[in-house]
Amino acid sequence: MARVYNFSAGPAVLPEEVLREAAEEMLDYRGSGMSVMEMSHRSKTYQGILDEAEADLRALVGIPEDYSVLFLQGGASQQFAMIPMNLMKNRVADYIVTGQWAKKAWQEASKYGKANKIASSEDRTFSYIPDCSDLPVSADADYVYICENNTIYGTKFKTLPNTKGKTLVADVSSCFLSEPVDITKYGVMYGGVQKNIGPAGVVIVIIRKDLITEDVLPATPTMLRYKIHADAGSLYNTPPAYGIYICGKVFKWIRKMGGLSAMKEHNEKKAAILYDYLDESRLFRGTVRRQDRSLMNVPFVTGSEELDAAFVKAAKEAGFENLKGHRSVGGMRASIYNAMPLEGVEKLVDFMKEFEAQNL
Amino acid sequence: MARVYNFSAGPAVLPEEVLREAAEEMLDYRGSGMSVMEMSHRSKTYQGILDEAEADLRALVGIPEDYSVLFLQGGASQQFAMIPMNLMKNRVADYIVTGQWAKKAWQEASKYGKANKIASSEDRTFSYIPDCSDLPVSADADYVYICENNTIYGTKFKTLPNTKGKTLVADVSSCFLSEPVDITKYGVMYGGVQKNIGPAGVVIVIIRKDLITEDVLPATPTMLRYKIHADAGSLYNTPPAYGIYICGKVFKWIRKMGGLSAMKEHNEKKAAILYDYLDESRLFRGTVRRQDRSLMNVPFVTGSEELDAAFVKAAKEAGFENLKGHRSVGGMRASIYNAMPLEGVEKLVDFMKEFEAQNL
Repeated sequence: MARVYNFSAGPAVLPEEVLREAAEEMLDYRGSGMSVMEMSHRSKTYQGILDEAEADLRALVGIPEDYSVLFLQGGASQQFAMIPMNLMKNRVADYIVTGQWAKKAWQEASKYGKANKIASSEDRTFSYIPDCSDLPVSADADYVYICENNTIYGTKFKTLPNTKGKTLVADVSSCFLSEPVDITKYGVMYGGVQKNIGPAGVVIVIIRKDLITEDVLPATPTMLRYKIHADAGSLYNTPPAYGIYICGKVFKWIRKMGGLSAMKEHNEKKAAILYDYLDESRLFRGTVRRQDRSLMNVPFVTGSEELDAAFVKAAKEAGFENLKGHRSVGGMRASIYNAMPLEGVEKLVDFMKEFEAQNL
Repeated sequence: MARVYNFSAGPAVLPEEVLREAAEEMLDYRGSGMSVMEMSHRSKTYQGILDEAEADLRALVGIPEDYSVLFLQGGASQQFAMIPMNLMKNRVADYIVTGQWAKKAWQEASKYGKANKIASSEDRTFSYIPDCSDLPVSADADYVYICENNTIYGTKFKTLPNTKGKTLVADVSSCFLSEPVDITKYGVMYGGVQKNIGPAGVVIVIIRKDLITEDVLPATPTMLRYKIHADAGSLYNTPPAYGIYICGKVFKWIRKMGGLSAMKEHNEKKAAILYDYLDESRLFRGTVRRQDRSLMNVPFVTGSEELDAAFVKAAKEAGFENLKGHRSVGGMRASIYNAMPLEGVEKLVDFMKEFEAQNL
């Protein structure tokens, strides 16, 4: 069995020891005589798995008691509707549009109220984060929305926007648990888990409890009400139980690795290797404004579509998978999430240097 | 490793060889060098898994070209809203309420239009299926809704209701792929997979294509529109990829076992062993009207709450798990889905006979 270096933007690489443990427990979870897939979600054993996952996540992030942690389905795309349906009391919200996903969230919110685009970086293919220190935040905005790390474009908010006292809602799908965060600055922080945490099909919502109310927009489906899930401890209906179990293992892995500070250090080290090379290379260059570069997603180009394609092909043959960039940016993208080992980035850069030598 | 006999109502027992294969492929899916959990849902390899799952399901059920197969998230509970939001063109629908889940579906639909309860068996704790040969179907009903197999109560529609020409919508979560069906009698057949097919977090919707339209209720979230998912081949956003992969393996297992006719035979044989014993036992008795008995879920009682509890405890110690009945019915319930081996039911009945001998 040869594992490749998987630079996929998501679903993405998971820690090998997590997969190994999951394989070992597949037919018999710790003497229960069954797989976690076969387990009643109302059983004590499964409740233990769920409780432990939540406790580990709370410990990792430092989530205070006045925040709920919800394990839900439907991905970020479903949150695009849940957020306005649950939070738009005044039917007004402000969106900062820094990429395709923020734009989709903004468009979805526009169905439910006045969703103002108060800033955007679409003018330069979302290759930077706009200055958000003094935006025209609406006086009656129910919240200000951002996508904190933009998977496709490789940008990241290095400082959170000044929301002028309004609730901040952030999609953190592609930077979840990649570095320490101060959760108290957010009203809602949410993300699909399939980039940094687990298998697709689970979305985690960390939400300040005062934002969880009965007062939702008319026609909000029961399954799209935060309160229903919060009151039931994420067990209103059968949850994506196996996915949550894997997430729980990843939380434990991150704790074992030293928690979010250690993750940040590890991620900065990896990113520096790649960005430093991109900055000195005469063939490759990064596409993002330097101060807005993501630690997780690193897009780069050669400037020639043919060379880009040749590179992606050669890299694949050498065991570096999923380096093709998103069609809206072109070129290449290396997603180097928590579980990507340092070695993977080092070897990629070695390979890029070789390719550069051969193609300059 | 000792596997128990798992009579859980869902999530429930899966074929051991499916789990074994999944464990083997966990770190390296067929030479791809990665787990299916780590695979881009836009990759050729994953597209192959999805296409094969759909093709196997189509072959198993005999799904004609004018039906779409959708792999979605949110479980049956989310379908309770999706169905009216997508199908209630006249804002009228008729519901046959044969259990808690049908009731919840009816209540959810009532938020979106006139949802008429045209029949119910609530008067006798849902222990039978009402006569549905000549119901007062509404002239302008957009559909008639049933829950075909009632997991909690152990009843099953042995003949479909006479919908008087209206579209039939059926929740088949707990009888999915347990016997042959004529899909052309249904407008929509859907089910959560966590009973007969795979891990929780996937819901399969088989829907006649003419019912998939742009014309949905106002405020329907994008993610709750069938058309969005149908147009994108279930890849509008990241699907619950690993769950679908396991479902695909179960489809192949059923095909290998001989398809739905063989499944029916297997299930009838298992159910007969249990029902025959219940009918002759002087301690245990079934709770469902004979002609309405489910092949999948078999509730039974001793008549004494103490004895029921003693039985569940003793059974658990003997390796028969999850036999406690739902709190609304009490007593016991044995769920004997496709993957429950004949041997499991035989041994359970042996154990019940022993218990009867000791406790009469």
